[in-house]
Amino acid sequence: MAELSGESGVPVATIKYYLREGLLHPGERTSPNQARYDGTHIQRLRLVRALLDIGGLSVATAKDVLAALDSSEVSLHHVLGVTQYGLPLANPEQADEEARAWAWATLEKLMDERDWECEEGSPVVESLIGVLATMYALGYADFVSVLGRYAEAAENVAEVDVRYIADLPNPESIVEGMVVGTLFGDALLVALRRLAQANVSATVFDTDGKVSRREAE
Amino acid sequence: MAELSGESGVPVATIKYYLREGLLHPGERTSPNQARYDGTHIQRLRLVRALLDIGGLSVATAKDVLAALDSSEVSLHHVLGVTQYGLPLANPEQADEEARAWAWATLEKLMDERDWECEEGSPVVESLIGVLATMYALGYADFVSVLGRYAEAAENVAEVDVRYIADLPNPESIVEGMVVGTLFGDALLVALRRLAQANVSATVFDTDGKVSRREAE
Repeated sequence: MAELSGESGVPVATIKYYLREGLLHPGERTSPNQARYDGTHIQRLRLVRALLDIGGLSVATAKDVLAALDSSEVSLHHVLGVTQYGLPLANPEQADEEARAWAWATLEKLMDERDWECEEGSPVVESLIGVLATMYALGYADFVSVLGRYAEAAENVAEVDVRYIADLPNPESIVEGMVVGTLFGDALLVALRRLAQANVSATVFDTDGKVSRREAE
Repeated sequence: MAELSGESGVPVATIKYYLREGLLHPGERTSPNQARYDGTHIQRLRLVRALLDIGGLSVATAKDVLAALDSSEVSLHHVLGVTQYGLPLANPEQADEEARAWAWATLEKLMDERDWECEEGSPVVESLIGVLATMYALGYADFVSVLGRYAEAAENVAEVDVRYIADLPNPESIVEGMVVGTLFGDALLVALRRLAQANVSATVFDTDGKVSRREAE
């Protein structure tokens, strides 16, 4: 186990905890106090760390992901779905009925346009409904005019994401890549958008002159 | 003031606080205990709420934004820059020198490719360097192969964003639109990407069969 810890960089106490929780399969016992660990343990440890530390999944959800991964009954698409359910998303407090109804209609129109399907009640749908309903309630409903372009950009990134993970060598690394690509990808996409906004702003707004007020005022 | 509160939906105590802090300009005094407020107060209140409640800016940063907005010396591009500095971004703990050097080289290459400029030390650059360095340190440097497509998507969204706010009627609403579009836009973009990933995954991975392990294993 000291060797597994050295190779993986995961402390022995943490490895013991993972074994107790069933997040890591036991090594092959070679003596009462010794067990042999192999490449499958290194690989699983990487995945467990990615699920817990990068993805922020609870131990219970991480167990669900691993159980799905180890099952011979379910597809990789399903495993990825279980994983996605555990990843953090913005979830504003619910607005009133009218705002939610508007948000639902907006989302359905968007899905129709892109030929997307969604699962009612999934965390992703809850997040979208919550954000849209909050915008509506605060008087920013017209921002929806740009939503189609957001969805198009999201789809372009998602296609790169899924192609990237599909090329990884085995199911463990695919699930790991999905967590890493989603979470770090969120942070990169958000920061790159800020950088792009600043660069577009420099071309659209006069950078020398003072704040220009329109005649309308 | 009761009328201003009723029209804007902002409590009287909050309006008094904004007046004390200089976030809102005083009304025209009509008697020792009365002041008249007009459309500029409603507009400014909306902006202050957006900066503090949606943007999460500190009162000090909100003051800087408003001071820049009210100055006759600075451009709207500059005001937007001051605003962006205050918006929240992922900022992982700094990795080691090697990881940071790699992150810098990666970012410079990306900026060259897109003909973007960036300000060293800005929160956006710090976030990008932090995320990239962390990915490198954790062994996910090869995710950088998809970074160009992320930047392209970010630019597409940013162009829509900036064009959207440029069409708003006055500087106050442009700054407000930038905060709202950036913050709610982040949440929408992240959630739409998850929805798109699920839809792309359904076409790329076999949804019926079990988890398929490659021959390589």
